[in-house]
Amino acid sequence: MTVWLNGALRPASEARIDPADRGFLLGDGLFETMAAHAGAVPELTRHYARLCAGAALLRIPVPLTRQELAVAVHDLLAAQRLTDAALRLTLTRGPGPRGLLPPSAPAPTLLLTAASLPPPGGPLRLVTSAIRRDEDSPLSAIKSLNYLPGVLARMEAAERGADDALLLNRAGRVAETSIANLFVRLRGEWVTPPVAEGALPGIRRACLLDAGKLREAPVTPEELRQAEAVCAGNALSLRPVSMIDNYSLPSLNMP
Amino acid sequence: MTVWLNGALRPASEARIDPADRGFLLGDGLFETMAAHAGAVPELTRHYARLCAGAALLRIPVPLTRQELAVAVHDLLAAQRLTDAALRLTLTRGPGPRGLLPPSAPAPTLLLTAASLPPPGGPLRLVTSAIRRDEDSPLSAIKSLNYLPGVLARMEAAERGADDALLLNRAGRVAETSIANLFVRLRGEWVTPPVAEGALPGIRRACLLDAGKLREAPVTPEELRQAEAVCAGNALSLRPVSMIDNYSLPSLNMP
Repeated sequence: MTVWLNGALRPASEARIDPADRGFLLGDGLFETMAAHAGAVPELTRHYARLCAGAALLRIPVPLTRQELAVAVHDLLAAQRLTDAALRLTLTRGPGPRGLLPPSAPAPTLLLTAASLPPPGGPLRLVTSAIRRDEDSPLSAIKSLNYLPGVLARMEAAERGADDALLLNRAGRVAETSIANLFVRLRGEWVTPPVAEGALPGIRRACLLDAGKLREAPVTPEELRQAEAVCAGNALSLRPVSMIDNYSLPSLNMP
Repeated sequence: MTVWLNGALRPASEARIDPADRGFLLGDGLFETMAAHAGAVPELTRHYARLCAGAALLRIPVPLTRQELAVAVHDLLAAQRLTDAALRLTLTRGPGPRGLLPPSAPAPTLLLTAASLPPPGGPLRLVTSAIRRDEDSPLSAIKSLNYLPGVLARMEAAERGADDALLLNRAGRVAETSIANLFVRLRGEWVTPPVAEGALPGIRRACLLDAGKLREAPVTPEELRQAEAVCAGNALSLRPVSMIDNYSLPSLNMP
């Protein structure tokens, strides 16, 4: 396996993250999960814009342009002999001295990895997690490396025999799953919880909103259970949800 | 500089964190900051117990005993020619495949680093952060690698000319600073916010509680401003707080 690290392709076994990297020590960074088709990422512009928005919030410099990212994607896919792939771009503030304050001149770390696209999955079973999305935290709107709530929710779901966790926000309304936005068919219309409700601004979600196929609206757990259909979507997949806790849902794909 | 990584001493420049480490990719891990004096960590038993409690919550196996940790501390301090030092122990779930679910047989990463003890600092000026501690999250009670709220609060404090940030909990009461517990003298008695209020169970805090020098009690921002004295303490230091926002406080050290 080959990875792209700070501008160079290397065997994964030789790629080295510095033990002083603030991504490793403090979760001080961001990531993007991107789908490549035919050797490129169709939604690269959206991914790059979201990365820049998150980096601006954290005040991490983005050390490459959109065009340079496109070249990195191309080079890595070629090196891995992949055309369709799941890519992950990780940006951290890079190494730093002891303590919380960032170095005055950070040298960010950028890692790009690629793997085969997972096979399309079937309908999902969700269970409602005890973990809540904090819709009041600015971190809920960015894809940061502080991913432990998602990890714990996903582990809890697996233990309860489910595929993923349904995360409510602190107000008790629907936010998302541990890795996907939720699209809910109510009264003949597809809606999705707003970012202000604790939903990550997902790339597939943004495409569907822009295409007019989806509208933002708060969703209660009761509405979710009574929905005409529910789908879970992220950059890599769009799958119907067939069950939430003990409630069955009609398995309807989004058009 | 020498570091101790997974059981071996190495030059920091040669120590390698795997790019697939879940600590780096997801903040999936914990850390301890420990003070060494005369070549050993006096509170090692407490630090080890807190690490194990956090690891149990995250279900990360702890791959060394308390005695092995004591040996690692000894060896690293000797290699670094330090007797008094600030140590950091980082435990992550180790490398994993794509996705949130941990590997079935994780190989945790353990990193121990040492640096000279920072010189004792003077009185601290705090500013109240917009970032809140979430007292309802199980993650608030453990020292996880999801440290972005603390990083953002500390950056905000620096920009506002202060030494550290005062973090309130979601109920609006006092929790802690970005790196220290708060000890507040009210009506002749030292109190500290309970862990249920969003305070990290700090090691110095635990020592003072056990010694009967401190009592747990919720603290409001108003009480903090009217306190007879306030100190901020963690494993490495105990400093008086001289100012919170625009309010001056008597600079009184804890006995």
